[in-house]
Parts: sequence; structure tokens; C-alpha cells
Amino acid sequence: MSNFSKKTWEQIHSIFYPRSIAVVGANKVKGTVPSDIFYNILKADFQGILYPVSPKEQFIASVKSYKYVVDIPDAVDIAILVFPSSVCHMAMEQCGQKGIKSMIIISAGFKEVGGAGIDRENQIKDIAKKYGISFIGPNCLGVINTDPNCMMNASFAREMPDAGSIGFISQSGALCTAVLDYARAKHIGFSKFVSFGNKADINEIDLLMYLKNDPQTKVILMYLEEVSDGQALMGIAQEIISETGKPILALKSGRTSEGASAAASHTGALAGSDEVCDAAFEQAGIIRCENIEEMFNYAIAFAYQPLPQSNRVAIITNAGGPGVLATDMAIKSGLELAKFSEETTKALKKSLPVTANIKNPVDVIGDARADRYVTSLTSILKDKSVDGAMVILTPQSMTDIVNIADEISKIAKESPKPFLTSFMGASDVAAGIDIIQKRNIPHYQLPEDMCKSFAAAYNFKKRLGTKISPLEIFEDVDSKTAKSILKKAASEGRKFLTEEEGIKILDSYKLPVLPNGLAKSEDEAAMIAEKIGFPVVLKIMSEDIVHKFDVGGVRLNLNSIEEVRTAYGEMMRNVKAAMPEARIKGILVQKMVKGGEEVIIGLKRDYTFGPVIMFGLGGIFVEVLKDVKFRVIPVAKETIYEMIREIKSYHLLTGARGRSKKDIDSVVNCIQRISQLAVDCPQIKELDINPLLVQDEGGGCFVTDTKIML
Amino acid sequence: MSNFSKKTWEQIHSIFYPRSIAVVGANKVKGTVPSDIFYNILKADFQGILYPVSPKEQFIASVKSYKYVVDIPDAVDIAILVFPSSVCHMAMEQCGQKGIKSMIIISAGFKEVGGAGIDRENQIKDIAKKYGISFIGPNCLGVINTDPNCMMNASFAREMPDAGSIGFISQSGALCTAVLDYARAKHIGFSKFVSFGNKADINEIDLLMYLKNDPQTKVILMYLEEVSDGQALMGIAQEIISETGKPILALKSGRTSEGASAAASHTGALAGSDEVCDAAFEQAGIIRCENIEEMFNYAIAFAYQPLPQSNRVAIITNAGGPGVLATDMAIKSGLELAKFSEETTKALKKSLPVTANIKNPVDVIGDARADRYVTSLTSILKDKSVDGAMVILTPQSMTDIVNIADEISKIAKESPKPFLTSFMGASDVAAGIDIIQKRNIPHYQLPEDMCKSFAAAYNFKKRLGTKISPLEIFEDVDSKTAKSILKKAASEGRKFLTEEEGIKILDSYKLPVLPNGLAKSEDEAAMIAEKIGFPVVLKIMSEDIVHKFDVGGVRLNLNSIEEVRTAYGEMMRNVKAAMPEARIKGILVQKMVKGGEEVIIGLKRDYTFGPVIMFGLGGIFVEVLKDVKFRVIPVAKETIYEMIREIKSYHLLTGARGRSKKDIDSVVNCIQRISQLAVDCPQIKELDINPLLVQDEGGGCFVTDTKIML
Repeated sequence: MSNFSKKTWEQIHSIFYPRSIAVVGANKVKGTVPSDIFYNILKADFQGILYPVSPKEQFIASVKSYKYVVDIPDAVDIAILVFPSSVCHMAMEQCGQKGIKSMIIISAGFKEVGGAGIDRENQIKDIAKKYGISFIGPNCLGVINTDPNCMMNASFAREMPDAGSIGFISQSGALCTAVLDYARAKHIGFSKFVSFGNKADINEIDLLMYLKNDPQTKVILMYLEEVSDGQALMGIAQEIISETGKPILALKSGRTSEGASAAASHTGALAGSDEVCDAAFEQAGIIRCENIEEMFNYAIAFAYQPLPQSNRVAIITNAGGPGVLATDMAIKSGLELAKFSEETTKALKKSLPVTANIKNPVDVIGDARADRYVTSLTSILKDKSVDGAMVILTPQSMTDIVNIADEISKIAKESPKPFLTSFMGASDVAAGIDIIQKRNIPHYQLPEDMCKSFAAAYNFKKRLGTKISPLEIFEDVDSKTAKSILKKAASEGRKFLTEEEGIKILDSYKLPVLPNGLAKSEDEAAMIAEKIGFPVVLKIMSEDIVHKFDVGGVRLNLNSIEEVRTAYGEMMRNVKAAMPEARIKGILVQKMVKGGEEVIIGLKRDYTFGPVIMFGLGGIFVEVLKDVKFRVIPVAKETIYEMIREIKSYHLLTGARGRSKKDIDSVVNCIQRISQLAVDCPQIKELDINPLLVQDEGGGCFVTDTKIML
Repeated sequence: MSNFSKKTWEQIHSIFYPRSIAVVGANKVKGTVPSDIFYNILKADFQGILYPVSPKEQFIASVKSYKYVVDIPDAVDIAILVFPSSVCHMAMEQCGQKGIKSMIIISAGFKEVGGAGIDRENQIKDIAKKYGISFIGPNCLGVINTDPNCMMNASFAREMPDAGSIGFISQSGALCTAVLDYARAKHIGFSKFVSFGNKADINEIDLLMYLKNDPQTKVILMYLEEVSDGQALMGIAQEIISETGKPILALKSGRTSEGASAAASHTGALAGSDEVCDAAFEQAGIIRCENIEEMFNYAIAFAYQPLPQSNRVAIITNAGGPGVLATDMAIKSGLELAKFSEETTKALKKSLPVTANIKNPVDVIGDARADRYVTSLTSILKDKSVDGAMVILTPQSMTDIVNIADEISKIAKESPKPFLTSFMGASDVAAGIDIIQKRNIPHYQLPEDMCKSFAAAYNFKKRLGTKISPLEIFEDVDSKTAKSILKKAASEGRKFLTEEEGIKILDSYKLPVLPNGLAKSEDEAAMIAEKIGFPVVLKIMSEDIVHKFDVGGVRLNLNSIEEVRTAYGEMMRNVKAAMPEARIKGILVQKMVKGGEEVIIGLKRDYTFGPVIMFGLGGIFVEVLKDVKFRVIPVAKETIYEMIREIKSYHLLTGARGRSKKDIDSVVNCIQRISQLAVDCPQIKELDINPLLVQDEGGGCFVTDTKIML
């Protein structure tokens, strides 16, 4: 069982596979939710006993009705609540008394309407707790299970969907009706279909945990408006993908953030919630889709076809133009056009007319009938250099569309390689598309979408093959020191650490801070400088001064004792003139390093996903170009390298254009240690190391400036 | 009449509006091209006389047939050639003798098959020239004109499309059949529909010129595989947009280029043909679409609705989830959610239930029936702060889809503001969508596509409003000097100019080159240096040395006569040691400027679009980040500013993060002068000014290095 879910598998299972259902609040008024749900369950031939519960009716649709749920003489597995929200708590209390442990609460009028609705939601949560009830909802469309052993349509959707291998869970009920309608037209079936509404009890994590072990579900789709627990979502997703290989596709709204909150650090300002969500989903292996159509485009490729071994595709078309458009998108999506073997080339030459193009993309020419598609596909799919086929058709007057659909879908069924199709048009090609879709061969209206879907399957396959090493924990850190500094600052009600404190914390986690010392007098400054060697930097240390530069509190590149002494005196005078009230702890004397590439490492806490690490090149790259990447902590070593490789300016670190190669390994080590610090010390709200000076390969890197916020 | 077309409007018109047609090569074998074309013309009720010409048949479909076209007793306006390619030239010769001046050549087997096909194509071109024949094709699907005065379906498409205001021209015939099928299902009509195939005579420019003045055509769509004449295409597009306001949407394949050719300049290496095509289309106002679906999504917004006055949209939905998804895409596409007036807010509050969301996006709630859509849309469309409405519907069991479709389309018809719809799903919503589409209200399966289409209309409207000033021609340039230098280099068979020559050319076009002089001895170098002032740079001048740095041929930052003398001697020795054979003209002594932002200005000749200018920041920005933008020459001042603003690192020039503002005006002036040079001297193949050092505002800029290739 997974650690990420608050529910047991059995608790969720009892909702999907009841042997008896009470519809509490059912009525006879067709076209209303209470009635539609009752009739939907009845119509779908539910494999168990259905009880209407209604204060008014003696029977509904010839089925004996009970006034109260407690009146039902037999045991009831689940109750579906369709009463108005104002009386739900009373009905729920009775369900508890009846010993019902699982419920679906359809009724709206809870948290989503605010005010009294929030109280009502808390009330039903309390009752659920009291009786140990697990429930889906409130404010949802319901739950559908197409398993022939159950056949439950406990929803007010218009129709029961076909059975299939796609599990769909959604936070929006209204979107579900659109999805069901869309899917039915394409003969796309579902294993489980859940609208989970306000998720007052059971949430997406619990449902994912269930679908992980649901044998009917091969592909998981979800629509989310807000993530309940980011870390748990990532955890369960990684578990599902690594243990079962089931792909998870997500549509998450809220892409345009409300604007990053005014934050004191660069990381805070740059890590908008949607950027972090993007990074988190990618890190967890969740495929984030742009819209419903893209989600189902990918879903059918995953659900109906094997994953491709690699990315070498063959395109077969009866139209040059669309062949070119498909090739463009294939290449853009990271696919390659397979180079056919001599044998295949010979076979194509033999079976196709001279005007045909026998090179990939293969053009069987506009007047092609089924035979040309069949012979060319047969030899192409046998070719070892081909990882999958994509077939395009346009409807010329002589194109025998239905016959071609029939023949090629037979070939698709027999081939162990992925096989996607695109019959372009609408009316003329409709009958052909219908044949293909009924046989569960993926079909796409646009060749471009076909290519993107093949690429999605290929990328998922590639990901399944990559190994992630276990998290490295450094034993040489001194978390006690770090914690005591943070505790002290917190006790003083401070929001910022001084740089001296920041350096000490980083030092305690063995980050490469430069030799330094706090001087309280000119003499001390001179002594420390001599000890650590020139050049040095002087920085004013005061809890009251955040922007040291602005008050003359920083002096760079001091090369002698005399320069240090002079600078010390001048700085003190400047600062006192600028901020006479500031409490000054002294001046930090720090070794100065010249050269190296400036990078930034940042840390912030995302409301949803928790600690997030940021990486980018410093200076204008972060400030103007915003060329930074994010990962959620904890983060494996491979993932850190991946994050570094993803920035656009990456080649500045690898020796592009005659530059020297930089010590990326040492940066990765720093990020690992900061991640560990973030986990050990949740008091740290934000952190910037800016810049970290990265030296040439083998030369390590140095923290030159740091800012830590509580 | 336009200057860009090789044809007169009347020549093209005669093909679209013939009073008599001969189908040369017609036969009775149904399901073949020669038969299908004849029957298509007949079936469509062509408003003129149709003559079959067939060597074998006496009549086809009860219409008297002629053995040869010359046998037809009356005048024939156009001939449609459907004979096999091998005999086309003979039939064409007869058409010429018959005095036919306009033809559509459907037959395939010409240039597209290579070899003898190329000869056949040249042969028919020669015959056309001899007789003054204009023709469309060969290798095409044909031509359709839905004008009730003509009703010509001279194509082998399956059916005649509906009449409408979209003009469609396509290089691919097979794509046309898919497009017609796709459009028919959505009740999208066409004014003219042309498959122009190999464009051996009439090409896209001629057709655009015709559609510009075609009163039936409101929106122009085109599919191109290669552009015949880039400058002419841009010219006619700009003319159409500025003179008629008709939008032009293009689908252009070949997005993934064959890899930029190995070029000697940065500009050459960065300007892939597709990047240039993107820039050229944008510059000309052509809207480049990603795929057929996007093209028609935009087309119906343009064809059916007025352009929005601005970008403040209202979203009305019966489902929260899709409302959020639409809002995300609206914002991302540059739209704004309108803020309703108090009056509107009051009206919404009055007419909608308390659980509804009366703020934009307005949620009329899942159980909404037509009345809620009607009352809210009525008040919203009256609101002066709303520029257009986008309506979303999802099919709940109580949703009266057909009624809603009927009611809102009436409102749409009465409103002067753009009105787009998205009924989500497929089967359940089909009848509603059909009503909407039949009434020519734009409908989109995805709310996201609806938002993108609204944004496309808004962006086009914005573009129509921007003024482009006439091209500035500088009179102070000395083109004679430039030309004589180029002539001399060409006569010596050189591919590169020396830097001295390059500087002279730039100087002759009044670009800000630094004071300099060519020294042939140490003494001369010292003298020149003293005259222009220190610091100076020395650079070896030799036609044989391209990479001066590599052979020790450059010395920077020389601050005194002594340094200049020493450097001169050392450089001569170094270069002679490294390249003893090199012919050395001397050493260029040039003023050195410190500071300023490095930018690059480049020039190259694109195969399709001609001279192209490039702009970007220098150094790593061009080399690693490839942060550059292109425009096709000639280029208006506003367009140059726009190009500069488009680079990602633009804010480095405008004073971001405490930097100083740079003299962008002086850069624009440089680009204008380089553009003029490119037009005056077509011998210049590529040119890099890298870097141009841009000083603070008012300080101008300086050319420090230049490379010119022939």
C-alpha cells in the first residue's frame, strides 16, 4: 500500500464495487439530479441491489422506496446523497447510524458557495469522522465503474460510457459531461470515471492510489484545479509510473498565475506557482497536457498501442502536402524518419507505381486504393529499422476509404509496433474513422497531432528506462549549528539573517564559503585580512541593513592592510551617516575570488509543492532573461544535472565558443546540500546564493553572497 | 492593378468566369479523373456551355462530344486538360489553334516526377507562350467558383462546397480534398477554391492579386510548399491588407529546415529558411498558421464576425472548469477579461441565481437553461467595456442545448460585437453546434481555440491601425565608392573584402566607422595613431588572411607611439611566421572605443525572400543564445524598432536593473543605411557588423569589426 494516501485501498474499492446502493433523496421528477442518478444506475444494469430513499415516494420506477435509510431492512454498502445541501447532514447522520461506511455526496451548496456552505461542509466532515465514513464529493457529478462485474453509473451524466482502459478523475463535474460526450463520439472507453468535486474527504491522491492497483485501468487521466498536497501527488505519481508503468496525463488549470507575490528574493519573484507546477509534474513523470483534446490524443496512443521501442517512425500517405506537414511536426517533436532497409525499399519499389515516393515519408499517391496501403505497410512494419507507423489518408474521388480503414486496422492489430492513423477531412472520411476507432486504433484528425502523440509515447518510454539513484544524504553536515542560528533569529522576530549568519549556516552544511571573519575594529579587520590573504572584501554586518551597497556598506578588491584599514574607517563613517539608527555588529572580512562564471542557486517554499530549488546563470541571465529552472526537493542527482542542462545558457558552462569548461559537479554538490538544508530546516523560507562563482573543471565553486529569509 | 503579378486581372478572371468550357480528354469511365471532372461541372449547374472533347466518345452524359477541340463550332473560353501527360502538348497545341487563352491543366506527370516530366512541363510552357495562353497547373485538383453567376466545379473533388466568403488557394491537391471535406462538415463556405499544382504559369501571386479584387472573397487562405517569389508575395500581401483589409492566413510546410547551410557569417548560419519565412510573413501581415484546424479556426472568426474594437472579452459559461481553462488561454493570448459596468453587474445579479458567478468569467451554473444565457448575454453585450463575447456550454442532463444554440445565435446576429462559441463534447452537443454553424456563428470544439481565434482577430485589427512610414532614402551616401570597391574585389575573384575595404564601404554609406588609416611602415602607423588619438587598435590587412586573431594579426588597446611601433614590428614578424605566403597590404590603425553594449547587425540573401537583415546583442547572445531577429529588406523604420524590441535581451538596451539606456535610435539609423546598401549593391552576399558598440543615449554607436562577403 502507498504511504501517500490517507485512505486504504479497500475503503476506495468499496465505493467502486458496492453490492448494494441507497440513493438518498431520490425522486420521480425526470430531468432533476436526484431522479437522473437513480435512473442512470437502474438503466446501466448495476450488478447489485438498488434502494431509493425518499421522504415522499413509495416507489420509484417500480422499485420499493424507503422513507429513511435506516428503514432499509438489509445491509447497504454505499449511500449516494442527492438531498439539498441544507439537509445533507441529517441524512448523513442516518447513514452513519445505519452503518454505511462509503458515500458519494452529489449535492452542491457547500464550500464552493462560501459562507454558510463552508460550515455545512465542515459539518458533514465531522459526521463522517464520527462514523468512520469515507466519501467522494460533495458538489460532484458522481462515479462510474464500467467493469461488467459492477456496471455502476452513479452519476448524472447523460449516458454510461463504453468500457475501456482509461481511468479518469476530475475536479470539475461540468467538464466531465463534455469529456464523456467527446469520448463517446470517438468510441473511447473508460475503466473508472470519477468526478470528485470539493474533495472534502477522498481526494486525487486516494483515487490515484486506487487506480494504481485497479487491473482495469491502464492509463490515468486527471483534471485538477488545485493540487491538495503537492509532495504526495508527486510521490504517488512516481510510485505508479515506476511500479506499474501506467502513464498519468494531467490537465491543470491556472496556467496564468495571479502574478508572483512580491517576494524579497529572486527565487521568490521568479517561481510563479504555475512554473513550479510544470516543473513538479515533469519531475514526477506526470504528462501535463494543454487541453482536453491533447489529453485524449495522448491517452489513446497509450491505451491502445504498445510503447515504441525508439523514435524511428514511418509515415505512409496518399497526399504529399500532409506528408510534409507530418514530417515537419515529427522532427520538431523529436522523432526521426526511419531509413528503410534495402529489402523494404525493394518491396516498395515492386508494389508501388513509379510515380510513388518510396522513401520515407512514403507517398502511395492520390489514386491509391487499399492494396497499396496494405503492401507497403506490410513490408514497412517488418523492417527492423522502423519503430512504428503513422498512416495518412485524404479523400480523393477514387479513394476506397472504408476498405482502407478495414484493411489497415487488421494490419495494425497484428503488428507489435505502435500504429497511428489520420484520415483527414470530416464527412467523407467519417465511416472509415468510425471503423478505425471502434477497433481501438488511435485516430487523429490532424497528422500533426498524430506525430505529437507518437512522440509523447516515445518520451514516456524513454523516461521509464532512466534510472534515478537513491537520494544522497550527507553525514558531514552540522545541522545543530544551523538550527541554533535560525532559532536565535526567530526568537528575535527577524525575517532576515545577517550575511554572517547566512555564511555560518552554509558553512555548517559544507558549502564552499570563502574564508572570512567578523571584525569589530580596524585592527581586527587588518589581522583577519592578513590571515586569509589578499584581495579581500569588506561588508557591513547589521540586522537593520538589508541593502548594504546602497549605504556604502561594501568595499571590494582591497589588496593591502592599509587599504583594509582605510576602507574600514570610511565604511563605518558612511553607514553611520546614512543610517544613524542601525545597530552595527561589525564588518565582515572575506576572501575575494576573481573569475569564474556567476550562477544563482535559490530556494523557496511553494504553497502547494513545498521546498523548490532554482538554478540559473547569475546577473542579467536571471534578472533580464529569467533563464532559470526549478525542481521540487528532495531531488535526485540525475535530476539536478537535468535541471542544469535545461537552462538556455547551459553551453556557457560547457566550454562553448572557446570558453573553458566549468565545474558543474561542484554546483550539483552545492544544490544537493542546499536541498538537505531545506529539508532539515523548514524555518528557512527563502534563500539566494547569488552569485556562486563556478571555476574551471576541478576548481570547485565559491559562495560569494547569500541571503536567507525566515 | 498590382505590380507584383505577372498576369492581368482579366486573364485570371477569365478562368474563374468562363461562358464556355471544353473538357479536353473527358471520358465515361466513372471514378477516373477525366470523367469525374466532366460530371462535376455538369452536376454543379455551370452557368455556361460545356463541351466534352474525347477521341472515342460521341457523347458523354447525353452531351455531344467532339473529337478535337478545334472541331467545336463555337468559341470556347477555357479548356480543362485531363489527357495523360504524354499527349498534353498536342492537345494544348490544338487549344492554341482554337484561340483558347485560358486553361486548367489537371494532368499529373510533369515536373513533380522529375526526368522526362520536366521536359514535358517546359514543352507546355513553350506552347502557352507561343499562343499567349494563361493556365493553372499542371498536377492539380482544379478550380471551383461558387458564385451563383458561374457555379463552376472544375475539379475532381467529391462535392461542390457551399458558397461563402473564404478564398482558398493550395499548392497541394490532395490537401484540398481533406479541406473541402473538413469544411463541409462545419458548413464553411468558399468563394473561390483553387488547387494550383506545379504553378508552371499562374502562381500564388497572380491568384492573390485576383482575390484582392474579388468581391465574393473576404478572407484569403493559402497552403504553400515553396514560395515562388518572396518579395512579390510580401508586396501583394501588404497591398491586399492595407487596401482592402482582407486578412491572409497561410499554412506553409517545411518548418524544419534542411539545416542552415554552412555559412561564413553568423547571419548566414542563423538565418534558416524557416526563420526568415516566419519573419517575412509577419512583416507582410500574413498570419502563419500551425495546421489546417488553426487556419479554419481563425478563418471563421474573420469571415463571420466583425473585428473586435479592442481586447476586453467576456466569457459566459455553464461550467467552472472550462471557464478557468478559457481564462488561462485568453490571458496567455493577450486578451483581457472585461470589467463589467455597475449596470451590467446589477443586471446579472438580478437575472442569475445566487450560486452563479456574476464576475467575468460569468458562470451561469451547470443547470442553466437558455434564459440564463440570453439575459446575461443581452446585458453583457450592451456594456461599453466589453469588446466581444465568448460562450461556453457543457452538456448536463438538463441543458437544453438546441434551444440555447438557437437563442444565442439570434443574439449574436444582432450584436455588432464579435461573438464566438464553444459547445464542448461531440454527440450530445452536435445538433446545437449544427445550428450555430449553419448560421455562420464561429464555433470551436475547445474553448482554448476560441480564445486564440479571438486574439488573432484582435491582433489583426491592431495591425490594421498601425501606420508604417514611407521608406527613408538617405541622399548623403556615396554608392559609387562602394560599387567600385566591390567591382574591384569581384574582378580579382575574391569572396571576401579586407576589413579596410569593408570599412571604406560602410564609411561611404555614412555608418559610424572609427577614425582609421592604413600604415605600410612603423613610422606611418605611429603618425596615424598620433593623428587619431589613443588608444588605438592595429589589425593586419591581407586578402589572404580571414582569421586575423589566429595569426597574431590584431593588437588592442595601444596607448602610446612606442606601443604602436613595437606592436607593428611584432605583428609583422608573427604574421610572416604563421603565413609566409600571405600578401600583406599593411596594418590598419584604428581608434579604439571602450564601453558600450555590443550588438550585431547582419545581412544575408535568402533564396526565397532576398536580402534579410538580422539584429541581436553580440557575443554570447548571438553565439550561444541565438537571440536574434530578422526582417526582410526594404524595411520601414517602425519595423526596425519592432525587430529590436523583439529580442529577448532587449531590456539590456533600455536600462534594466540600473544599467544605462542605450542609443537605440543610432542603431536604427545604421540598420536603415545597411538596408539601403543591400539594395544598391546586390553583389554583397553576406555582411556582419560584429560588434557595433552602442553608447548611452545620444552617444551614438561605433562599428568596430566588419566582414563583407561577395
